[in-house]
Amino acid sequence: MRLDISYDGTDFAGWASQVGQRTVCGVLEETLGTILRVPVRLTVAGRTDAGVHATGQVAHTDVPEATLGTRSIAGDPSRLTGRLAKMLPDDVRVRVVERVNRDFDARFSALRRHYVYRLTDAVWGAEPIMARTTAHWRRPIDLAAMNAAASTLLGLNDFAAFCRRREGATTIRDLQRFDWTADADGVLVARVSADAFCWSMVRSLVGAVASVGDGRRDIDWCRGLLTERTRNSAIPVAQARGLCLVGVDYPADDDLAARNEVTRDIRTADGCCGG
Amino acid sequence: MRLDISYDGTDFAGWASQVGQRTVCGVLEETLGTILRVPVRLTVAGRTDAGVHATGQVAHTDVPEATLGTRSIAGDPSRLTGRLAKMLPDDVRVRVVERVNRDFDARFSALRRHYVYRLTDAVWGAEPIMARTTAHWRRPIDLAAMNAAASTLLGLNDFAAFCRRREGATTIRDLQRFDWTADADGVLVARVSADAFCWSMVRSLVGAVASVGDGRRDIDWCRGLLTERTRNSAIPVAQARGLCLVGVDYPADDDLAARNEVTRDIRTADGCCGG
Repeated sequence: MRLDISYDGTDFAGWASQVGQRTVCGVLEETLGTILRVPVRLTVAGRTDAGVHATGQVAHTDVPEATLGTRSIAGDPSRLTGRLAKMLPDDVRVRVVERVNRDFDARFSALRRHYVYRLTDAVWGAEPIMARTTAHWRRPIDLAAMNAAASTLLGLNDFAAFCRRREGATTIRDLQRFDWTADADGVLVARVSADAFCWSMVRSLVGAVASVGDGRRDIDWCRGLLTERTRNSAIPVAQARGLCLVGVDYPADDDLAARNEVTRDIRTADGCCGG
Repeated sequence: MRLDISYDGTDFAGWASQVGQRTVCGVLEETLGTILRVPVRLTVAGRTDAGVHATGQVAHTDVPEATLGTRSIAGDPSRLTGRLAKMLPDDVRVRVVERVNRDFDARFSALRRHYVYRLTDAVWGAEPIMARTTAHWRRPIDLAAMNAAASTLLGLNDFAAFCRRREGATTIRDLQRFDWTADADGVLVARVSADAFCWSMVRSLVGAVASVGDGRRDIDWCRGLLTERTRNSAIPVAQARGLCLVGVDYPADDDLAARNEVTRDIRTADGCCGG
């Protein structure tokens, strides 16, 4: 089954299960387990950090057809949506539940992840009703400078300078979109898309270009980061609250098996939880 | 001084000060008092209920010019904005502070209040990052039926059926706008404007037309409410979380004195706090 998931990350210690912590994966697995009366393990497209939000997260789980039959949702997994809405807390929702091709893997079938980052440089701070999803930058920012800096980072690059180290994870990523606009309230909104992101990468990309935008760094410094081979601690990691996973792209069903073949070599044993 | 104020009402017991409760007015008066080192009393355009939000609230306070001078903000009250941003909690912000005409009264000079109400009928509930500002209606709603019902309520009418009783307060109001649209995410958004609103009026207007929208009531029932002279308990009061005060209109400076003359007869002794 594929699940399309939204959450307000403010009160979660991130996606991945951790003992003694309230996590998105933990809450979902427990609730699904209660409804289906079998242990449920979720695999997710993007393992978001503490405080990061999602409106377009995707996960999958393998539940035996017999189990769904017993729970009267065989043939219509969408009935699960209503059950979940009644049992889940307000800060996590499952928008769609659907049966998918056996080759579908929320993590390894994903072609592209899309994030949005919201940032305000207003002296008075963030609009309170958007404060949980809007970061505050304490210096005035120039939008054009931010876009100039962001555009130097596009393409297939080694983003090691932007990534917290994770054993065996590549830092070579294809950054396909990174641009900023100002919304009607003057909030700066970045759209950031790549095949995949390494740990803390989006928030470091935002921190790097905002340092150019506020005049403390120049564009050559930003471009030069792509030549570094280890994390650069001079890059500020922008606040988690501004970040939201808004979508994940997958291939058409016919191409799923081939896609999994390609990515199999980078698979490791970790599931979504405990990672 | 005029203050333009925003807040997330979720964790406030409304605008008006109440002993032992966290209120917007209480937090603002205390913080302003700390900065200016004089007692500050605010008068507000719309005394919102517990859980109701604002992006366009307006208040005023009379602070002696000498006090501002002592605090180094004479001639530029906008310096207060930065000070307030550092001291206030994230869920209340003062966007603008400005010196205004002596005849300006945030409450009695106001010509018109504008509210927005956000409502979703999605089975899975409200998008978590918008859950604090979006109400959930448990039955499917027809947008066209809602608009048909809403349009029957426009104009100068006695809204007694929609108002909780308050001693001496008129229930005759001029409802100038009340219409619904669906946003990109399918959330139903009402825009509601009137010269003024009595207690619980916007939420009762929403509850009445949503009862038509979900098919439990017909449009004649809705229209007929305008002929009633006391509160009708059959009207559901929609959740506070969906409601947001988005703006207040005032006359040009030249017309302020005349406006106050007109409204003086309905003035009572209550300030914004303790009302």
